Amino acid sequence: LGYLGVYYKRNPQFYLRNQNPSEREQSIAQLKSSYREIILNYFSDTSDLNQKIDEFVNLSFFADISVTYVVEIHMELIDEFSKQLKLEGRNEEILLDYRLTLIDIIAHLCEMYRRSIPREP
Amino acid sequence: LGYLGVYYKRNPQFYLRNQNPSEREQSIAQLKSSYREIILNYFSDTSDLNQKIDEFVNLSFFADISVTYVVEIHMELIDEFSKQLKLEGRNEEILLDYRLTLIDIIAHLCEMYRRSIPREP
Repeated sequence: LGYLGVYYKRNPQFYLRNQNPSEREQSIAQLKSSYREIILNYFSDTSDLNQKIDEFVNLSFFADISVTYVVEIHMELIDEFSKQLKLEGRNEEILLDYRLTLIDIIAHLCEMYRRSIPREP
Repeated sequence: LGYLGVYYKRNPQFYLRNQNPSEREQSIAQLKSSYREIILNYFSDTSDLNQKIDEFVNLSFFADISVTYVVEIHMELIDEFSKQLKLEGRNEEILLDYRLTLIDIIAHLCEMYRRSIPREP
């Protein structure tokens, strides 16, 4: 993709903050479910991992959610996994590896924003 | 800053790929030195940490470098620290914590890009 300078057109109607409560609830559920899919498959040999990442990045981009919110989705999920591992008496150190997933996803999202800026401002 | 929708004007002349070799060398040195400053101070009580992060993010934004390149700068520095810790016979596990630094920086950079998109496309 590189330096295409694609200028994605976004419709403010689809921004999370402009959605009505029920739309918003649905969008948030979709974002969380998409993120969970990525985490659950990140270290396995899933052929469609990149597709899953693209899907989440697209959802985030068109909903114009802040990166802070992406980090929150990550933390919430990791907390949930952490509690589960503790209950099962297992070591939760493995969860640290998912920081790589978060880096990967934010990096993709950032590149999407970078490419969406008009080429000649 | 939030949803200001600031549309930063960038001058393509300053993009890293448009710089001449000596300018580029200087810019890369500046980026690396700025990143090193952040890493070295990230877990200390430095009052101007946010300022250092803003500085690096600004450099990256106006030079239009890819996020992949930011990750490369990070990896190169962590490799260097890793070698040093090994030489000193010290545990290098602490270096994993710097993934948080990378997340923080990419998140800031991504927000800068997000805010730089014209409000009504």
